[in-house]
Amino acid sequence: MMQSLLERTCALIAPPDAAIAAETQRKLDGKTKPRRSLGRLEDLACRYAAITGSSAPSLPRKAVVVMGADHGIAARGVSAFPQQVTAQMLLNFAAGGAAINVLARHADARVVVVDMGVLEAVNAPGIESARIAAGTADFSRGPAMTREQAVQALGTGIAWAERLQREGIGVIGLGEMGIGNTTSASALTAAYTQTSVDEVTGFGTGISDSVRAHKVALIRTALTLHRPDPSDPLGTLAALGGFEIAGLAGVVLGAAARRMPVVLDGFIASSAALAAVRLAPHAAGYLIAAHRSVEAGHRCVLRALDALPLLDLELRLGEGTGGALAMTLLDAAIKVLLEMATFEAAGVSDSGA
Amino acid sequence: MMQSLLERTCALIAPPDAAIAAETQRKLDGKTKPRRSLGRLEDLACRYAAITGSSAPSLPRKAVVVMGADHGIAARGVSAFPQQVTAQMLLNFAAGGAAINVLARHADARVVVVDMGVLEAVNAPGIESARIAAGTADFSRGPAMTREQAVQALGTGIAWAERLQREGIGVIGLGEMGIGNTTSASALTAAYTQTSVDEVTGFGTGISDSVRAHKVALIRTALTLHRPDPSDPLGTLAALGGFEIAGLAGVVLGAAARRMPVVLDGFIASSAALAAVRLAPHAAGYLIAAHRSVEAGHRCVLRALDALPLLDLELRLGEGTGGALAMTLLDAAIKVLLEMATFEAAGVSDSGA
Repeated sequence: MMQSLLERTCALIAPPDAAIAAETQRKLDGKTKPRRSLGRLEDLACRYAAITGSSAPSLPRKAVVVMGADHGIAARGVSAFPQQVTAQMLLNFAAGGAAINVLARHADARVVVVDMGVLEAVNAPGIESARIAAGTADFSRGPAMTREQAVQALGTGIAWAERLQREGIGVIGLGEMGIGNTTSASALTAAYTQTSVDEVTGFGTGISDSVRAHKVALIRTALTLHRPDPSDPLGTLAALGGFEIAGLAGVVLGAAARRMPVVLDGFIASSAALAAVRLAPHAAGYLIAAHRSVEAGHRCVLRALDALPLLDLELRLGEGTGGALAMTLLDAAIKVLLEMATFEAAGVSDSGA
Repeated sequence: MMQSLLERTCALIAPPDAAIAAETQRKLDGKTKPRRSLGRLEDLACRYAAITGSSAPSLPRKAVVVMGADHGIAARGVSAFPQQVTAQMLLNFAAGGAAINVLARHADARVVVVDMGVLEAVNAPGIESARIAAGTADFSRGPAMTREQAVQALGTGIAWAERLQREGIGVIGLGEMGIGNTTSASALTAAYTQTSVDEVTGFGTGISDSVRAHKVALIRTALTLHRPDPSDPLGTLAALGGFEIAGLAGVVLGAAARRMPVVLDGFIASSAALAAVRLAPHAAGYLIAAHRSVEAGHRCVLRALDALPLLDLELRLGEGTGGALAMTLLDAAIKVLLEMATFEAAGVSDSGA
């Protein structure tokens, strides 16, 4: 049944409407400014219109879905932070004190916190429970999760996208928390893009050169063990992913199937989107790349997604923070389309160029 | 008397407080995130704190000062738009239909529109009159303005910065409108930075290759005629500038003297800031570079100001639009400093790294 939700969702995903994008650009060309002078803000407005299917879209209500989970690989000492920080940070999100809370309030976005499988269940008002298990298994020794667990996590994400749309949300940002999850994201990126582990492995939350070398060696071991098959994106996700990563991949699929844009964040959220795109290639048209992270593998994922990020602010926090910042640019782009006067209405001479 | 206002203002400008910047970084290091993981947003918060002199600054009220004026050089056919567009756009600003109106509302910034010398006076509610003359003279044949006019325009800008601070504004964005003013900005940039005219001359609002070649030739003629003296920045501004450019240079000086940050915009606003920095080098510490414009000379000005822009969205509109977008990032940075929980308060384990 879960498997069929995933298949049904993937089958629903069609490319955004290119004719609407062109119509939107014509509308922007009639506004009082030299043509194309708002550059990528104009592209963003056209993209949003094409995704939603209207050249007169409304300003969307926004949400950031922050999924948290623990990772078996963290026991191998790949992070600068102890594993209990995953749960501590989920409580911090629920209390409103984390960076994502501040930046989501700034962007007027709701924060949805989902426990996808933290080591010990986090019970607090404001934390939604959708636990697959108490953390993944150590993927350097066996699969991180079963295929069934991956499908379950994807289904949870799909269901969240549906629910948020029902609740009036028009754009979803991806956020994550999980000590050790850059290791999972690097492994997934190496597997999905056939790139060397060294190129896609960075310093995460701030590890040393020697810890990074250990991280690279562990990922290489895992890739040798699992031999991920390019024609089996679900198997790759199960072998190397995290519950929060699979959940966010599901959010992407659910949003794309319902013609909602998804705002990426850094390396981990983007690797989740890459998993979604490997499952349903047309989902790529629904992604808005928020920023270019400092984390080494992010460039590689963005390249694989053919996505040009809006911001380059040397962020490496995750949580959805870069996505929240980019949402303010998306709002700005839509307001340009909706609120600017035309040459005709304002009595301004056009250059005709 | 005007001259002495300028001298008094320049003498008041001291560098931002480096000790406050360091204290602010320490505060940010105690927040629940890996250290420095919010990258340039953290730099921005430290910069703002150092400028205002407090590591617990308040969120500033914001204004964009859009100065408009006409340019004698426009008669030589250097723009894609007819000269009356300057006045038409000032009316559009006053009516609220231009891009800067939309983006300033988005950033919750007030728009102040100042007629610094449009060809025919623009009288409408919401347009402040501070006319120096009915446009500058054609600088390819003689000085654009007299030194006295340059001093008067600078004084107008200084007075606006003072007035806005009295009215509770804490950060000022620079905006401009003036058909032909990229030609003036290119000439000023070539003179102030000793860069070749070809390198700093672009396509403005959308001219052809042959019009651009004509623009380059005119600027070369002007530089041969005026032989700008690197030790006389005021003389250079008078010879090649515009009333709106000189006015905005005054806004920079007035704001820096009163420890207010100034958010740049594209090429023209940044060339005004460069004029201010040549008059008072410490003013550079008060500038926040908003974005990197498509316009060729902008890179050169930013380099001369040692300024790294926050955004790179292929904008080339001016009006202060890029600055308004950057103001939303400044707000975000200040909110991170003011609103995020500390490791201690949130009960989150620190990595110590």
